[in-house]
Amino acid sequence: MQHFDQELAALKEKLLTMASKAEAAVNNAIKALVDRDDDLARSVKEEDNGIDQLEIEVDEMAIGLLSKAPLASDLRLIAVAMKISHDLERVGDEATTISRRAVELSQEPQLKPYIDIPRMAKMALEMLDDALDAFVNANPEKARAVIPRDKEVDALNRQLHRELSSYMVEKPTTITRCLNLMVISKSLERIADHATNVAEEVVYLYEAKDIRHTGKGQASREG
Amino acid sequence: MQHFDQELAALKEKLLTMASKAEAAVNNAIKALVDRDDDLARSVKEEDNGIDQLEIEVDEMAIGLLSKAPLASDLRLIAVAMKISHDLERVGDEATTISRRAVELSQEPQLKPYIDIPRMAKMALEMLDDALDAFVNANPEKARAVIPRDKEVDALNRQLHRELSSYMVEKPTTITRCLNLMVISKSLERIADHATNVAEEVVYLYEAKDIRHTGKGQASREG
Repeated sequence: MQHFDQELAALKEKLLTMASKAEAAVNNAIKALVDRDDDLARSVKEEDNGIDQLEIEVDEMAIGLLSKAPLASDLRLIAVAMKISHDLERVGDEATTISRRAVELSQEPQLKPYIDIPRMAKMALEMLDDALDAFVNANPEKARAVIPRDKEVDALNRQLHRELSSYMVEKPTTITRCLNLMVISKSLERIADHATNVAEEVVYLYEAKDIRHTGKGQASREG
Repeated sequence: MQHFDQELAALKEKLLTMASKAEAAVNNAIKALVDRDDDLARSVKEEDNGIDQLEIEVDEMAIGLLSKAPLASDLRLIAVAMKISHDLERVGDEATTISRRAVELSQEPQLKPYIDIPRMAKMALEMLDDALDAFVNANPEKARAVIPRDKEVDALNRQLHRELSSYMVEKPTTITRCLNLMVISKSLERIADHATNVAEEVVYLYEAKDIRHTGKGQASREG
């Protein structure tokens, strides 16, 4: 049993490694955008490969552990770990999307100073951080507090979308740049959705009731 | 043991119910777009609630089964079923996105006849169908054949994106409509990504080697 607990701790550890890599990828993608640093943007794609690899490792560890899990609560925890790793993998994908668009944007003059986008990134990553902290420390209250913050990121994304739409109408020469910024804003909104998913999984795990899709706790996936 | 097999069959059955609801939601969203039928578009949101509920049920069944699974291969199958249900839930979300944009589009004159969008929808749904069929019939070859088709959908999305971008530049009054069509095209591209995820999971399940993220089998998530 002690051996099982050690393996479970190792699984959590690997998930945290994956999370810190995913968060670093997002931070680097945003830094590449703001600093117009194409080399940094390209390095994000490399980082993403490492995150993908970690998802495979987490899944393998999880499947190995499932067959030895002594308690139903362990099974639930392992299943949730697999779901979280999938969300983190998608966060890495979004970072790659952002960095690709950053490279495109650095080929033209900058449209305006970036203020809202770094702010959205910070909000989304703090949500993810708190959700993972809640997972590791078995703290469903903390996870629950993450969920409503998704609305703020959604609102920022909508606001930015409106601003960029008007801008395009006024100055059609900016259309390509505006579209790239819209994609980046949308990616950040999706990262916040993933953080919300993780938070919902953590509440579900430790309170053993499912708050997903109830409207109350749900990450409204905006399109 | 017979009881376990029955429960496993019920899990697969529920997953197929979920899949047919997700596919119907996408079809209805596209039909609502083409026919400019707002009532049908709004009904997609209702359908999506049913899909969300099924994800919760699949998870509950899967967790219940995990504790009784006699073989490692059963554990793997149950874990994959949970992943597939999550992909199907996201397909339902994309259908809701499409239907929301369809309602916005029907408030303005139609930009042009929709040809590529229904074609993309058809391709993406056929991929999903084949991937699920491969899951149920334990057919990794069939699943493997799904994966390269993702590139065709990606290419169509890129082409449509280019066309719509040029259109916006030429006629800025069409910007709102073009943006809505871009979102719909992107949603379909994501549905094909989910189908590819399912296909990769099925190959992994039945060939017990992981082809995700190898570049060869990977769904290139474009952004």
